[in-house]
Amino acid sequence: MPKNVDHEKRRAQLAETGSTLVAEEGLEAATMRRLAAAAGCTTGLVTHYFSNREQMLLAMLRSVHDAAAARMLAIISSTSSPRAQLEAVLRESLPLKTASFREWRVWLAFWGAVPSSAALAAEHKLRYAEWRQLLLVLVKNACGAEEQTVVTRLMALVDGFGLQIAMCTSPRTAEARVLHEECLLALGEVLDAAGIAD
Amino acid sequence: MPKNVDHEKRRAQLAETGSTLVAEEGLEAATMRRLAAAAGCTTGLVTHYFSNREQMLLAMLRSVHDAAAARMLAIISSTSSPRAQLEAVLRESLPLKTASFREWRVWLAFWGAVPSSAALAAEHKLRYAEWRQLLLVLVKNACGAEEQTVVTRLMALVDGFGLQIAMCTSPRTAEARVLHEECLLALGEVLDAAGIAD
Repeated sequence: MPKNVDHEKRRAQLAETGSTLVAEEGLEAATMRRLAAAAGCTTGLVTHYFSNREQMLLAMLRSVHDAAAARMLAIISSTSSPRAQLEAVLRESLPLKTASFREWRVWLAFWGAVPSSAALAAEHKLRYAEWRQLLLVLVKNACGAEEQTVVTRLMALVDGFGLQIAMCTSPRTAEARVLHEECLLALGEVLDAAGIAD
Repeated sequence: MPKNVDHEKRRAQLAETGSTLVAEEGLEAATMRRLAAAAGCTTGLVTHYFSNREQMLLAMLRSVHDAAAARMLAIISSTSSPRAQLEAVLRESLPLKTASFREWRVWLAFWGAVPSSAALAAEHKLRYAEWRQLLLVLVKNACGAEEQTVVTRLMALVDGFGLQIAMCTSPRTAEARVLHEECLLALGEVLDAAGIAD
């Protein structure tokens, strides 16, 4: 394997280890020293991959976004009806499974840090714009129009319900299940109102 | 002024100073040392009021919740129609003004820390239950029924849109204004669907 592939792979592994730290203990656990300890390497090696803490945090944020985006694209390619694709992508964006619940915990930690870091704020905007674009394309496929308002409302419902589900101790609690059902109902009504049929 | 009143007042002032620190720089800025520096006192005095950092964080969180709740109760007492009360309380719960925008920044920082602190998680649950109860009472006044689903959806919309508005650099940006308008529209539709008339 060429050396730069090794480098990228090791960097991605470190970012994933770091995002697990953040999901479990919050942003404050994301230090070079803690990451080195969790990854079983030296702090020097961590600084070889990330020049400073902000670069390390950005890599962690990208790591969870990329994982979520990859799952969404896989869903789209394996689902045929436009409405089913939209519903599957929206479900995947909620913290209903172990992986997405963990990702939500990471996003929550980062959202709190966005106001104090221009780099994290820019990364947040970029990733949100990507998510909005994906939903816009799916909505356009489904109803033939660029429905910005429909997409904004879908995103707000996912964020609002997702936030409360992510605050539960697990996605399998009774409270999380009720929120999940109510969210799918609300999302379905927005799709119905936009004339997006099954 | 009796000594314990002085004590409570000073503690509340410290909590407010701390919440401003968190709003501007995130949770990581909320250390005993930083709070002492911001308040112009010694770290020893801060530890006199808060036995540890978690107690300090809880006091900050309560400080912003209490300020928001006081504004909401003032609105309710000065508004007569049940629908107008509901709309005013929902508007007040969004980050549309300087005070509520600052409070949202504080909540965002704390939400990221909830998964890693049982005490913060318990405080979050308690405050959310209070907010739900207030909305339930207002919805019941307006339509005569305990509409849990209506309240859940209103809260999800406020959280989802509020989150995106709080991510803007200020509540006065063009993006924040668009989100604000779309949120009020979405909330109005939920109230209409529940038969809550003007």
